[in-house]
Amino acid sequence: MEFTVKQIATLLGGEVAGNESLTITGLAKIEEGQPGDISFLSNLKYEPHLYTTQASAVIVDRSFEPKKPVASALIFVENSYSAFTRLLEEYHKQLIFARVGIEQPSYIGDGSQMGEQGYRGAFSYVGRNCQIGSNVKIYPQAYVGNNVRIGDNTIIHPGVRILDNCVIGRNCVIHPNAVIGSEGFGFAPQPDGTYKTIPQLGNVILEDNVNVGSNTTIDCATMGSTIIRQGAKLDNLIQIAHNVEIGKNTVIAAQTGVSGSTKIGDNCVIAGQVGFAGHLTIANGTKVGAQSGVGKSVEEEGTSLNSSPAFGLKESMRSLAVFRRLPDLEQRVFKLEKKNEK
Amino acid sequence: MEFTVKQIATLLGGEVAGNESLTITGLAKIEEGQPGDISFLSNLKYEPHLYTTQASAVIVDRSFEPKKPVASALIFVENSYSAFTRLLEEYHKQLIFARVGIEQPSYIGDGSQMGEQGYRGAFSYVGRNCQIGSNVKIYPQAYVGNNVRIGDNTIIHPGVRILDNCVIGRNCVIHPNAVIGSEGFGFAPQPDGTYKTIPQLGNVILEDNVNVGSNTTIDCATMGSTIIRQGAKLDNLIQIAHNVEIGKNTVIAAQTGVSGSTKIGDNCVIAGQVGFAGHLTIANGTKVGAQSGVGKSVEEEGTSLNSSPAFGLKESMRSLAVFRRLPDLEQRVFKLEKKNEK
Amino acid sequence: MEFTVKQIATLLGGEVAGNESLTITGLAKIEEGQPGDISFLSNLKYEPHLYTTQASAVIVDRSFEPKKPVASALIFVENSYSAFTRLLEEYHKQLIFARVGIEQPSYIGDGSQMGEQGYRGAFSYVGRNCQIGSNVKIYPQAYVGNNVRIGDNTIIHPGVRILDNCVIGRNCVIHPNAVIGSEGFGFAPQPDGTYKTIPQLGNVILEDNVNVGSNTTIDCATMGSTIIRQGAKLDNLIQIAHNVEIGKNTVIAAQTGVSGSTKIGDNCVIAGQVGFAGHLTIANGTKVGAQSGVGKSVEEEGTSLNSSPAFGLKESMRSLAVFRRLPDLEQRVFKLEKKNEK
Repeated sequence: MEFTVKQIATLLGGEVAGNESLTITGLAKIEEGQPGDISFLSNLKYEPHLYTTQASAVIVDRSFEPKKPVASALIFVENSYSAFTRLLEEYHKQLIFARVGIEQPSYIGDGSQMGEQGYRGAFSYVGRNCQIGSNVKIYPQAYVGNNVRIGDNTIIHPGVRILDNCVIGRNCVIHPNAVIGSEGFGFAPQPDGTYKTIPQLGNVILEDNVNVGSNTTIDCATMGSTIIRQGAKLDNLIQIAHNVEIGKNTVIAAQTGVSGSTKIGDNCVIAGQVGFAGHLTIANGTKVGAQSGVGKSVEEEGTSLNSSPAFGLKESMRSLAVFRRLPDLEQRVFKLEKKNEK
Repeated sequence: MEFTVKQIATLLGGEVAGNESLTITGLAKIEEGQPGDISFLSNLKYEPHLYTTQASAVIVDRSFEPKKPVASALIFVENSYSAFTRLLEEYHKQLIFARVGIEQPSYIGDGSQMGEQGYRGAFSYVGRNCQIGSNVKIYPQAYVGNNVRIGDNTIIHPGVRILDNCVIGRNCVIHPNAVIGSEGFGFAPQPDGTYKTIPQLGNVILEDNVNVGSNTTIDCATMGSTIIRQGAKLDNLIQIAHNVEIGKNTVIAAQTGVSGSTKIGDNCVIAGQVGFAGHLTIANGTKVGAQSGVGKSVEEEGTSLNSSPAFGLKESMRSLAVFRRLPDLEQRVFKLEKKNEK
Repeated sequence: MEFTVKQIATLLGGEVAGNESLTITGLAKIEEGQPGDISFLSNLKYEPHLYTTQASAVIVDRSFEPKKPVASALIFVENSYSAFTRLLEEYHKQLIFARVGIEQPSYIGDGSQMGEQGYRGAFSYVGRNCQIGSNVKIYPQAYVGNNVRIGDNTIIHPGVRILDNCVIGRNCVIHPNAVIGSEGFGFAPQPDGTYKTIPQLGNVILEDNVNVGSNTTIDCATMGSTIIRQGAKLDNLIQIAHNVEIGKNTVIAAQTGVSGSTKIGDNCVIAGQVGFAGHLTIANGTKVGAQSGVGKSVEEEGTSLNSSPAFGLKESMRSLAVFRRLPDLEQRVFKLEKKNEK
């Protein structure tokens, strides 16, 4: 990022007091601001920092009146917090879409097409017959198999593996070393105790606006598709098995695992290290507490579950409270028995 | 895949009714079949789809007699379900062994040898003095260190890391981004609170027919070998620590972790997100439920364990049932105490 | 490794009996020693192996007197066990720092500098404006983003991803496919049920002597830094979320997850598959048992926690013991109720 204070003020629709030609190269909290940084003051608890900050510029509310001299340039806007957030987003967008062009060596197979404004980093691999939208960024060392489709504005970070026939929507972000479309874990036991591989010939579909965290694995379907619906957000180190479906705008925290053929509804909130058994159907709006083990389908929307095996959140909290008093409870039973013996 | 209906019928030992020169390019469920697909009808519940499917061909039992006209070509075989499964397997095999030859740039060190029908993808790296069997497929961006041996027909997917001195058997499949032979987690505490690294100089041995899932990590032994015995199947995101042994045909589901020096027997079935403490011996045929924590060795073959810390499956189910009634149980004790006070 | 027996004796300050010109190429346990190996005898329980081992040389205590003829060369030292350990460490150091130079093709961006004795493997990628110390080893297929700093003697294994602006200390080891500095999991819920990405613009700082295991993920801070303090050791498949701090010499076992903004103190010992909620402060010297779920801050140093949700180790052991007797306890209450009815 490299802007003048004036350019930022124009972007945010604000007015400048102070040196509007200063160059801004970074964003910082007001108490940590250095020359070249821009910061903001929203909560007046932090006002004392305004008079001592090294930041070159500070965004403040239009209604704000400084009580002492300020060394930084000030940008007055309607709402300093949301203006700063907008600046963050703008900066972030610039950063992640900054790379354009093709670094060499990189590999692209026959029949594959790439849209405008794309990036293919060094050592990235794109197989045959892929259709890749515009403004797609394929970072160094990422792998895209054959017959893959990727929608506009999607970012494929370094070391991501997208296997044959997968379909990735628009505006998706796939973080480093995630694996999309690897073969599911399907083995048929044989009479001699060995296992025979059940061929996994389906794919994975990520709809639009999906995020997949670092080192997360999403297996392809046996036949048909493992589907992550639009707006779903998956954190790091998550396991999604074959034929799973994750609903729209469902959020799943790190290290959770979903077993084969389970369908999780829309707008669910799943905490970290949760496990789901296979072949379940989980209603829309279900909330699951960290480290829970969900072994049964959930029919009622908006259910809150907890514990392993999981049951109602409130009930589980009560049971867990008594669990901590168990030695005492046993003692009380022992005393009653003594009394009753007499 | 690209076959005529006739070629498929010959492969399956079946007879064709209808157009035997149609080209088949995919496999599908009967209700989802499109032109170019082949499907099958086994369970007669799905018979209505036979009269409406778009699939170019459908495999049916020899005993089956259509009740209406069928647009698709029919292939009559003894058992349509197992014929279709055979076709799936054949197709799968073709797919995964399809790649042959060397893509450039790729790296191979001095003294390394590669068998016939091999594949080394672009940006793959093979170190010095490696012996690689025939029909081995090393996908793009995979890493094979120095002095590694890999048996015939083994598939190394993109981004797999196999470190120095490891030995990989025949017919293994190692899925994307799995790490084989990284240094184990061994640190000796020093008087000043710091830790000193304990050198990890051993290797990992995968015997024949082993599967390793995506992003799974198998650490090398401190000295000697971490061993995964023949036919063992490991799912995604599993942690296998140094000096562990996993027995023949043992199956382990995703996100399970096995601590250092634990030996798991043959034909065990371990569910997902299970943890094993270190230095345990687990008898053959042990079954462990999801999210269990195994802290003690298992001596009796065929034991079923559950819960964390794990104990007998049946006993744990009973305890877990009472756990859900704990608030009620406490209330009952309270009432008894009240009564006894009088 | 390739040394003569004499060279090793000189390194260890020992005296040789036997052929001091033999070449040593490996290390082995005395019972497994082969020609070319060096072994040691410390515990006299293993003395019988000394008279049968194939090892070319064996390190023994100066006080030791063989009772039979020995075929191997003997190296007499003060303490055979610590001499062998020293040899292991020396060998290990040689191994991991053996690679020097630049393999092609590899990529390095404008303005990046690399110290002496460095290694950049084939297909490794180093972005712009990176400062890389001396004796740093960047293995094949590793990725280093823009503006990254890496201290002397640090090892970056194959497939590691270090994203923009991260700072890595001296003497760190980052194992294969670990991801450092990926964007944290921050999403703001919108009125229509979708989520908006909260830009993650901070970095990750690893101080000196930090180890990061294979496939572990450490997210960058939203602003500021996620920090792993000096001497901390992280095992495989660990999740460290944005803005977390891990204290000095803290050890964390595999598959543990730490949620956003949690600060873990110095010298803590965290077992495997543990989960920490977000925004906690964990005192120095805290110990946490495997599979525990830590939901509250810990104020007292040296606390031991266990269970999910976690509480005191001793108390949890007592509760877990009663948990196994729960069906019996319920039965006892039932009997008391029967008695009291009369």
